[in-house]
Amino acid sequence: MKNKIKVGILGATGAVGQRFVSLLNSHPWFEIGAVLASPRSAGKSYADAANWFGSEPLPKKTGGMIVSDAAEFVEVDFVFSGLDASVAGEIEEAWARRGIPVISNAGNFRMNPDVPLLVPEVNPDHVVLIDRQQYSEDGFIVTNPNCSTVGLVSALKPLHDAFGLEAIHVTTLQAVSGAGYPGVSSLDIMGNVVPFIGGEEEKIATEPLKLFGQLTQSGVDLLDIPISSQCNRVPVIDGHTLSISVRLKGNPDVEEVTDAFRSFESPLRALNLPSAPAEFIHVVEAESGPQPSRHVNLGDGMTVSVGRIKNCPNFGIRFVALVHNTIRGAAGGAILNAEYLVRKYYLGSGV
Amino acid sequence: MKNKIKVGILGATGAVGQRFVSLLNSHPWFEIGAVLASPRSAGKSYADAANWFGSEPLPKKTGGMIVSDAAEFVEVDFVFSGLDASVAGEIEEAWARRGIPVISNAGNFRMNPDVPLLVPEVNPDHVVLIDRQQYSEDGFIVTNPNCSTVGLVSALKPLHDAFGLEAIHVTTLQAVSGAGYPGVSSLDIMGNVVPFIGGEEEKIATEPLKLFGQLTQSGVDLLDIPISSQCNRVPVIDGHTLSISVRLKGNPDVEEVTDAFRSFESPLRALNLPSAPAEFIHVVEAESGPQPSRHVNLGDGMTVSVGRIKNCPNFGIRFVALVHNTIRGAAGGAILNAEYLVRKYYLGSGV
Amino acid sequence: MKNKIKVGILGATGAVGQRFVSLLNSHPWFEIGAVLASPRSAGKSYADAANWFGSEPLPKKTGGMIVSDAAEFVEVDFVFSGLDASVAGEIEEAWARRGIPVISNAGNFRMNPDVPLLVPEVNPDHVVLIDRQQYSEDGFIVTNPNCSTVGLVSALKPLHDAFGLEAIHVTTLQAVSGAGYPGVSSLDIMGNVVPFIGGEEEKIATEPLKLFGQLTQSGVDLLDIPISSQCNRVPVIDGHTLSISVRLKGNPDVEEVTDAFRSFESPLRALNLPSAPAEFIHVVEAESGPQPSRHVNLGDGMTVSVGRIKNCPNFGIRFVALVHNTIRGAAGGAILNAEYLVRKYYLGSGV
Amino acid sequence: MKNKIKVGILGATGAVGQRFVSLLNSHPWFEIGAVLASPRSAGKSYADAANWFGSEPLPKKTGGMIVSDAAEFVEVDFVFSGLDASVAGEIEEAWARRGIPVISNAGNFRMNPDVPLLVPEVNPDHVVLIDRQQYSEDGFIVTNPNCSTVGLVSALKPLHDAFGLEAIHVTTLQAVSGAGYPGVSSLDIMGNVVPFIGGEEEKIATEPLKLFGQLTQSGVDLLDIPISSQCNRVPVIDGHTLSISVRLKGNPDVEEVTDAFRSFESPLRALNLPSAPAEFIHVVEAESGPQPSRHVNLGDGMTVSVGRIKNCPNFGIRFVALVHNTIRGAAGGAILNAEYLVRKYYLGSGV
Repeated sequence: MKNKIKVGILGATGAVGQRFVSLLNSHPWFEIGAVLASPRSAGKSYADAANWFGSEPLPKKTGGMIVSDAAEFVEVDFVFSGLDASVAGEIEEAWARRGIPVISNAGNFRMNPDVPLLVPEVNPDHVVLIDRQQYSEDGFIVTNPNCSTVGLVSALKPLHDAFGLEAIHVTTLQAVSGAGYPGVSSLDIMGNVVPFIGGEEEKIATEPLKLFGQLTQSGVDLLDIPISSQCNRVPVIDGHTLSISVRLKGNPDVEEVTDAFRSFESPLRALNLPSAPAEFIHVVEAESGPQPSRHVNLGDGMTVSVGRIKNCPNFGIRFVALVHNTIRGAAGGAILNAEYLVRKYYLGSGV
Repeated sequence: MKNKIKVGILGATGAVGQRFVSLLNSHPWFEIGAVLASPRSAGKSYADAANWFGSEPLPKKTGGMIVSDAAEFVEVDFVFSGLDASVAGEIEEAWARRGIPVISNAGNFRMNPDVPLLVPEVNPDHVVLIDRQQYSEDGFIVTNPNCSTVGLVSALKPLHDAFGLEAIHVTTLQAVSGAGYPGVSSLDIMGNVVPFIGGEEEKIATEPLKLFGQLTQSGVDLLDIPISSQCNRVPVIDGHTLSISVRLKGNPDVEEVTDAFRSFESPLRALNLPSAPAEFIHVVEAESGPQPSRHVNLGDGMTVSVGRIKNCPNFGIRFVALVHNTIRGAAGGAILNAEYLVRKYYLGSGV
Repeated sequence: MKNKIKVGILGATGAVGQRFVSLLNSHPWFEIGAVLASPRSAGKSYADAANWFGSEPLPKKTGGMIVSDAAEFVEVDFVFSGLDASVAGEIEEAWARRGIPVISNAGNFRMNPDVPLLVPEVNPDHVVLIDRQQYSEDGFIVTNPNCSTVGLVSALKPLHDAFGLEAIHVTTLQAVSGAGYPGVSSLDIMGNVVPFIGGEEEKIATEPLKLFGQLTQSGVDLLDIPISSQCNRVPVIDGHTLSISVRLKGNPDVEEVTDAFRSFESPLRALNLPSAPAEFIHVVEAESGPQPSRHVNLGDGMTVSVGRIKNCPNFGIRFVALVHNTIRGAAGGAILNAEYLVRKYYLGSGV
Repeated sequence: MKNKIKVGILGATGAVGQRFVSLLNSHPWFEIGAVLASPRSAGKSYADAANWFGSEPLPKKTGGMIVSDAAEFVEVDFVFSGLDASVAGEIEEAWARRGIPVISNAGNFRMNPDVPLLVPEVNPDHVVLIDRQQYSEDGFIVTNPNCSTVGLVSALKPLHDAFGLEAIHVTTLQAVSGAGYPGVSSLDIMGNVVPFIGGEEEKIATEPLKLFGQLTQSGVDLLDIPISSQCNRVPVIDGHTLSISVRLKGNPDVEEVTDAFRSFESPLRALNLPSAPAEFIHVVEAESGPQPSRHVNLGDGMTVSVGRIKNCPNFGIRFVALVHNTIRGAAGGAILNAEYLVRKYYLGSGV
């Protein structure tokens, strides 16, 4: 691209915002045109306002940018939002009304019937929900799911396509980065497990029903299957591990399920999106399965790993999935959504 | 007791063996008469042979004892065994044949039809299986279950009694101490989750069927229900957390299940056993549920905590349980078994 | 004691405050008469106001108490203060003026020339500084040192007495509980070391000079020796480890230093204080030295462990010390101070 | 390079060996021609023999190679050695005698007067010691220092050049990867500090004296200054943190020392070595200093970070340094040595 598309980052100083900054640092299509955060941060340099905690240094160019108040508009082609849910609703809507598309990681509009809840490998057709939105001529909102949901629906997509889902049962082991920064106190989680994450189980029980829902004239018909989830916080920095049991139509065996994982073709293949990983789903052969410290960075954090596929006396099939919660499950997923929207002419049409 | 019962500890230098030493240090009924381990350790002082890693100092009296070879017999009233499964089979049988009762934590004889697999609050009547054993006039073997199984069956006992079990589905988050010492490499588990523990899922799928089995004239009739398990190692020192779903007869609601937990009366109450906790099952009220760092030491590590009891669309009921894997789930459980056997006149009859 | 002394706890909901509650739960002399905190907590039950994170359950009696505003006075014999330094100055002074003695863990008055900075095994004679205070007839303030300083001066006391200090060089490895709750974010410290703790190095460089200072007619003459410190936060829950080098008069060798540690007699021995440990200093024989997970709870957290005593080419002697930072280094130290003050007739005179 | 230089890796399955494999995977000059390990691994595929624990996948090409016995020779241009010290001495000497250069990370020959102990930014001239070796016409041994020493001498090099060292005092906080695999048990280090690492303090006290030694006609004259070290293991995966105090000639102040760090010119700049980092020393501006999780990967793990430079009342200057112990401190350092030897015509002369 000759002229890069200018993006703003809402909530740029937070944990997800910092991931946006990292991932957009050398993005071939997008460049950061504005970093926006709370009035408290506005006016400071990004380097001063953000307590940068990435394992790679803060990109100098962004570090020197002055943070704007997320409630005030700036000239950008669209914005990514890593805002906290407590403020995201109002602010994101304001930007959309102002004519600026919002590619959001926040939970506020995910279940809104006119807002695509999008994982482009899973439900690319849902993108047309944008056309139903009435914020303004050009403004709209697109969301990506909760970080655990992303891992769950990504891993289940090949099985839903091949066989059809009938019931889902999942226990999560979630990384602390999912709680943002400062997030989880070290006194609460070091050497410990906390079997509770506020609001998480509800999201996992509902978002997949929309993601796997059928697009109709009048919106998305939610899938109607039972989903049970129990969420645990574990002392891991990045990477949500999911222990998944699933009932599938036709009751396929382990080999058929493994084949379905292996033979799944990403619908993005032909689109050549910069953030789409070579492998959407990676099957870990090793008996010890997918592990945060070994597999979370596969496909630069955009690949979902699965393994330990076996028979389950209760559901038929049981396996383990792993997703990078702040890349594929948050900022990276939102960037992939934006890339997909460019290809679909919803974003950056002038370029 | 005027004269304490003299016990030997097989595998005394290992992780479970060290717990035996700690817990027996000031036991009102038992005193350590011998510490036994591999020929490599034999002849050394216990302080030298064991790489003591308890958070309390090694009791001086035991530290000065000379370790014997576990394959050679010494004069004790009975032995606890914390031997590794690779050697436990042969050695434990030899002691039983020699006329010395073996209260074992090893897995080798757990599913042997004539050997009680005992959690005295769960299946106290199974103790009479001892009478079917033919090792020698006085020698016999009694086992306690795998550390995760103990947590599972303890938490399910009140529900099985009140309603009846129909299906079990469990995901475990297991502490590193369960793997013994040196056990899990820090490089494998710090900041990581390993969704595999060799042999563990098989034990969890079978041992509860015996524990909840019906005692008949010809032994124990195994319970016949499906059990599905997925085991994870997590960076926790002590305390296995279990995410359990269960289908119960009559489909009780959350309140009825909570009541069943609360109103369960331990069959040990009247026996006044030194290691029996005041509460067999503790219901954690807090939304954040039972957690290793907060609840693992309840009842000196002998209480099993449950919490986060809720509806499950797949099974009816879902909850979280926590068990101290090296106390209730290993050495402490074995000691409680021995205390129960004393009360039932199988041990220490001369006292 | 027939009638226990009634104490209030200022800052009762915080990390140090919770330790006060734990340690006072079954104290033979003191009973909690009031729990006091910020106006935000006032009016709530202590159980609701405090996010209790002890590994033992919150004592029921205290859990049911209603929290008062620390700025309003209640009828107690004296108060412990676990207040944050940002508010401790004003509030503690107000209580002292009101006639109520304040036994404080906060840093505000530690270097005040009329306020004893007290570790009763180290500088018991400094207690008479109380007589110089003018807050009111009965009110006064006594402080204990910073948590790292406590470990440092405790370990050095036997050497200062036996030989005389000439220079101190220390590197600390400090636990996260030292930062209070929520304190250190898990994202900052899991699998990491942070070589900076705000204000800590300054405290370690000055407080020992007062603790080892000479009591004169006009107050305490500070010791005049160089102290260099570098403070690190490490992923440990409880227990500050100190790597200490020291230049001593007469240049004693390792054996003489070890003897000095071993032969030190606590000046508290005859006083029979409930919180005074049997061993003030414990010499760890093992080559692997004192370790948080093995030695931090010695003497119920009131013993300071030392080990790895060796020659140092730069200073003469080098060794490692370990202190429980929230017990001996904070709440437990303050309680010991109060016990000492009872014996010295500064507190609870009516009992 | 048209034809890459063929290298063997001795000890290829171990922790350092795996780092060699990772780092050589796409090296512009070297290609892996053989993976060699103990007889136990010989004959297996590398994928089967190595318990691969890198965070990036095992390179396929190497995974498929058959492991040879390190005691048997294969056709390669030179070998890297990541052998354990218990076997490295004999095996490395055998390869050198056979005419094959050995670039070793093992400690056995580091203090041998004819063997260069080399960090090419620190003592590049020492390379000529090779000419004094008599193993065979073409075979020789070159070593890199202990992982902590590397961090220490790298950080001190600019100061030694600018001012001259007079005394060194260091406390280390070392990562678990430094102990190899399986290395440190999780039960020993999770939530803990171990103030002892066998043999480490001796290495740190002697190796810098050779590295900063003067090359003369008859070998290297060791520097004669006192070095005191205390080594701690901490729960960090990669990255040794060093708290360093130093007495420098002329007693420079903080600004002069900072300038010396900033203005140091690596002697490798002109040589264009693939593994030489753009910055040899990186000065961390942030008050919170260099931290493993933030700075260890600077310069792909080849940059040493320093920070928290301040006055020290005992030595003059105190600061913190951080080194990636398995890259700059082991495999990466050895590869840089090999690259330097290529430029100096000691290796790969035929290419």
